[in-house]
Amino acid sequence: MNEVTIALDAMGGDNAPGVVLEGCAAALKDHPNLHIILCGTAEVVEPFCAEHDRCEASVCTEVIAMDEHPVQAVRTKKDSSMVRCAQLVKEGKAQGFFSAGSTGATMAAGTLIMGRIKGVQRPGLATILPCPTKPVVMCDVGANADCKPAYLVQFASMASLYIEKVLGVPNPKVYLLNIGEEETKGSSFALECHELLAQTVPNFAGNCEGRDLLTGECDVVVTDGFTGNVALKTIEGVGSVLFGEMKRTFMSGLKNKIGAVLLKDGVKAIKDSVSADTYGAAPILGVKGACMVGHGSSNALAIQNGITTTINTIESNVTELIAESVAAQRSQEN
Amino acid sequence: MNEVTIALDAMGGDNAPGVVLEGCAAALKDHPNLHIILCGTAEVVEPFCAEHDRCEASVCTEVIAMDEHPVQAVRTKKDSSMVRCAQLVKEGKAQGFFSAGSTGATMAAGTLIMGRIKGVQRPGLATILPCPTKPVVMCDVGANADCKPAYLVQFASMASLYIEKVLGVPNPKVYLLNIGEEETKGSSFALECHELLAQTVPNFAGNCEGRDLLTGECDVVVTDGFTGNVALKTIEGVGSVLFGEMKRTFMSGLKNKIGAVLLKDGVKAIKDSVSADTYGAAPILGVKGACMVGHGSSNALAIQNGITTTINTIESNVTELIAESVAAQRSQEN
Repeated sequence: MNEVTIALDAMGGDNAPGVVLEGCAAALKDHPNLHIILCGTAEVVEPFCAEHDRCEASVCTEVIAMDEHPVQAVRTKKDSSMVRCAQLVKEGKAQGFFSAGSTGATMAAGTLIMGRIKGVQRPGLATILPCPTKPVVMCDVGANADCKPAYLVQFASMASLYIEKVLGVPNPKVYLLNIGEEETKGSSFALECHELLAQTVPNFAGNCEGRDLLTGECDVVVTDGFTGNVALKTIEGVGSVLFGEMKRTFMSGLKNKIGAVLLKDGVKAIKDSVSADTYGAAPILGVKGACMVGHGSSNALAIQNGITTTINTIESNVTELIAESVAAQRSQEN
Repeated sequence: MNEVTIALDAMGGDNAPGVVLEGCAAALKDHPNLHIILCGTAEVVEPFCAEHDRCEASVCTEVIAMDEHPVQAVRTKKDSSMVRCAQLVKEGKAQGFFSAGSTGATMAAGTLIMGRIKGVQRPGLATILPCPTKPVVMCDVGANADCKPAYLVQFASMASLYIEKVLGVPNPKVYLLNIGEEETKGSSFALECHELLAQTVPNFAGNCEGRDLLTGECDVVVTDGFTGNVALKTIEGVGSVLFGEMKRTFMSGLKNKIGAVLLKDGVKAIKDSVSADTYGAAPILGVKGACMVGHGSSNALAIQNGITTTINTIESNVTELIAESVAAQRSQEN
């Protein structure tokens, strides 16, 4: 088993640094080949690294907050934990970085510091959807609010490589998120995308709709970052409202309470099967190296799983595979 | 109580005509002031009308199928049940029509036959979201895949009138579906919409995100028909997957089965609280008269409730109120 080194942003996330350190400790136990470079303020990272093997402190004096302007924050806070993480990858000292901090800032750090893979027009934020039966990768879910159809073609090939090589789904099928299954359906942008995807992406299988996202029929779903972000947050919102209603109902009246005790494990299994914590990290596809975003509300388990997903991303060499695929596509076009 | 006459498409929906007739019979019992003009083929509508008071048959020879091209079908199938319904409203013989058939064709029949209210740029399909605590109206959810910001301004005022006058939510607040709460967030289209809404819609309250749709914080959510349709179908899809997982879990193992028996009523109450059947019909706002769309998969209860929603829409005079509001807005602009 080869050694793998990850730069971890100790300061990223609503519950940082507590849950990040806890998740990091658990991941170090899980993976004997894992080295962590823990980036954060001295009082956070130094005591932790003193107590844990295979964990090196990289002391920073600044932190990028969740609500800062992403690009501006990355450009001005040169000594922040997030910028440090990206620099460590750029310098070859780490193979990937993981932060549960601001998604926009992680994206900006990845794109501006690590840099785009040659030929990639726009990196895309992909998410592994919490589908109960199998992973589904949707890209873009927020990196590019305005897209051109050509971006979606690249999202399709990058996300296909990701789901196949990192998540082990063979021969993935790509769908376009649209408002009808027929190829004549959709906005003028969706129609253009459909046409280009059909012409250029061999594993393109047609349109899917919002109701198909979690059924497991699609492997890869491509969309512009605006629609993808709305769909992703809608999924999260519906889950949260329904589980909230279940909790409220299950606590009202003796009969419900007894039923709830009996069903506790079952309901927990459902919650787990659709939880964003299962993978814990979403990849920014198209940058040089693994650049992984955790949910702001990550708990320790989500951080632990996110580190595992980062390791899998690194070990699958998906960055190199994307680079080769884009280069091949470009040489075909020329 | 004034008499109210509704043209009902007996042939519309996946389970038509059976569930339509069943729902119609129940609605006639519910509302002693209701008259129905039942449009459909002779063998469907004549026996039913012979057996029911306040129900008149309007015999047609054609039916528009779910998968036909909406505008073409409405233009060519002049003797279809859906076209007949819209004509009855246009001729003043019915005050509104309701169909659980093709949404696109209902939309086309409403717009082409009943006609747009003067000054309305584009009618919008609004839906009453299945939020557990209170109704939320989202518009557009699919009538206009491509929108201009000015359309959303009209969706905002039409949907505000609808939720206030028909559903009884006072002083409704309007939100723009976007990918962040800050006004600087979004696609270039969303930014333009935000600016125009802030300038022209007095009850505009800012951006909301996908995760806010069912919390009950928003009253009206405006969006282009592409994004709205994706969000609506995503809500339906997540609900269906989660209830499916619950059913599967609750049937596996004795402990779960006993728990499920105890929780049966509670789970049903949750399902009902988020069911699209509660209102049964979605209004097409901006056409002359009540033009209501049911879900293709409507059951008899959904049809029954959809007829009630159609009655409420007619009795609230929302069409006239929209006409006045649009006229006032236009005179301000001139």
